[in-house]
Amino acid sequence: MTLNALFAARPERWDQYKDVLPEAFKAAGLDVHLALDIDPEEVDYIVYAPNSDVKDFTPFTRLKAVLNLWAGVEAITNNETLKVPLTRMVDFGLQQGMVEWVVGHTLRHHLGMDAQIVNPAHEWAPATPPLSRDRGVTVLGIGELGLACAEALVQLGFNVAGWSRSPKTHDKVTCYSGDDGLKSALAHGEICILLLPSTPATQNILNAESLSFMPRGSFIINPGRGQLIDDDALLAALGSGQIAHATLDVFRVEPLPQAHPYWAHPNVTVTPHMAAETRAETCAEVVAENIRRNEAGEPLLHLVDRAAGY
Amino acid sequence: MTLNALFAARPERWDQYKDVLPEAFKAAGLDVHLALDIDPEEVDYIVYAPNSDVKDFTPFTRLKAVLNLWAGVEAITNNETLKVPLTRMVDFGLQQGMVEWVVGHTLRHHLGMDAQIVNPAHEWAPATPPLSRDRGVTVLGIGELGLACAEALVQLGFNVAGWSRSPKTHDKVTCYSGDDGLKSALAHGEICILLLPSTPATQNILNAESLSFMPRGSFIINPGRGQLIDDDALLAALGSGQIAHATLDVFRVEPLPQAHPYWAHPNVTVTPHMAAETRAETCAEVVAENIRRNEAGEPLLHLVDRAAGY
Repeated sequence: MTLNALFAARPERWDQYKDVLPEAFKAAGLDVHLALDIDPEEVDYIVYAPNSDVKDFTPFTRLKAVLNLWAGVEAITNNETLKVPLTRMVDFGLQQGMVEWVVGHTLRHHLGMDAQIVNPAHEWAPATPPLSRDRGVTVLGIGELGLACAEALVQLGFNVAGWSRSPKTHDKVTCYSGDDGLKSALAHGEICILLLPSTPATQNILNAESLSFMPRGSFIINPGRGQLIDDDALLAALGSGQIAHATLDVFRVEPLPQAHPYWAHPNVTVTPHMAAETRAETCAEVVAENIRRNEAGEPLLHLVDRAAGY
Repeated sequence: MTLNALFAARPERWDQYKDVLPEAFKAAGLDVHLALDIDPEEVDYIVYAPNSDVKDFTPFTRLKAVLNLWAGVEAITNNETLKVPLTRMVDFGLQQGMVEWVVGHTLRHHLGMDAQIVNPAHEWAPATPPLSRDRGVTVLGIGELGLACAEALVQLGFNVAGWSRSPKTHDKVTCYSGDDGLKSALAHGEICILLLPSTPATQNILNAESLSFMPRGSFIINPGRGQLIDDDALLAALGSGQIAHATLDVFRVEPLPQAHPYWAHPNVTVTPHMAAETRAETCAEVVAENIRRNEAGEPLLHLVDRAAGY
């Protein structure tokens, strides 16, 4: 029997999903009709984004579950017309993409690649970089994403430290925490990766004082949040040589305005908020897997606890 | 009791080793006097390079072993004055450095980093690279170094194929071999890493025909040997767009002559034969470990079979 799945997200997302969702359904062995418009009484599943026009779930009389495409569900948890299970998106593609971006730029700075990528004088200048075991790397923020990056760097042999607000332990990552631990964490290595959430406590965590804790000539890699960095302090540290280079993927204003000094700075690489991109392909696999599970009577992945709100 | 170790290599190597060898001896708990000049009758160990002036080992009456700093020992295996064990160098630093260089440049091309590193127009152009699982990478040459690189890439999620002249198997690397397998191996992925030895059979293995087997817009990474590539064919393939970019660490003539078209080519990155650098620090650790083992009556690492010649 064909299942009916309504795609209830902003219309501009349809192009991204109209092929990959059916492919994922097929790969999961499911017979699903996916469309933007289906008689509510015939809808089995809703593939949902909280900014869609669907706010009243009452007409969907045979609905089995709402499968959210976003990680955030705060706009829907209190919707009293929603009586069926709700899942949130945990996109393994997002985490994997972040790991690849972070490891790639860490190796880029570790190996000093830019000297060969941009070499107008055609200099043949052999320089042996240290081995990864002799390179300290600090990850600020060792939540799910930060830990995945830290572990991939450990796997490549780097000497990795992590920092979090509250104490954590890890058998292969030196863990620091709290205000006292920040100085030691920053002093640990020449490459610092920012993967903290943006909260009042993390605003400008990299500022004139904390930048001075790092070894002279360090590298900053920020795929986290623009608010983590005091931009004027970073520009001053780049000017003095305290920081050798900053590779920044996130900014207080995006796209980064053309007049911002980061664009023209020879020791700043601007990347266009690409490190943690949600991937339609992997999201589609999660949606398909949840329909497969529900049809087979297996528990749903990433089921939202409506009372807790996530 | 202090052991006496003679440093018998070209004098210009002394600067590289005069500090790191004593540090490695100390770290191994050994009391060793290292010098360029020691009365032969008092020498316990010789730290050796086959191009040193020491050719007659007869005067070294209490010699316990010769510890070679090179992987190659063909210049000494037939020396009949050498009556004590001979070890060759297997530098784990060389392999680890190769893995870091190869993984770094693979991620660089995979992520399309150059578009952000060199971005004079300050374009904010988000583009989501495929996940590593959707990126085919081919390693030509799956000996010790090639396999270490292939496994590190598998660890990061890449879809890796390997090619060797004679058949091999691996549980996570798709293995191809022989002339018949070369086409399939090259068709496997958009990133091709060359780690073959230079032999008559591998000369110009990347030529006009074999380059055409790769997917259009592929990337070449060569940390192996310059002789593996037909340079004119590669330049033609770069010109036609069949190859998007080549990152080359080795060349038929090194340093690469200034007039060579690779230097000025916008889609070629020249790196100065840096991928597989012997590291004095890690070599020193191997030498120290072998003295420690010999003094403790344990078997030597990398002992040369003089009859077999390696």
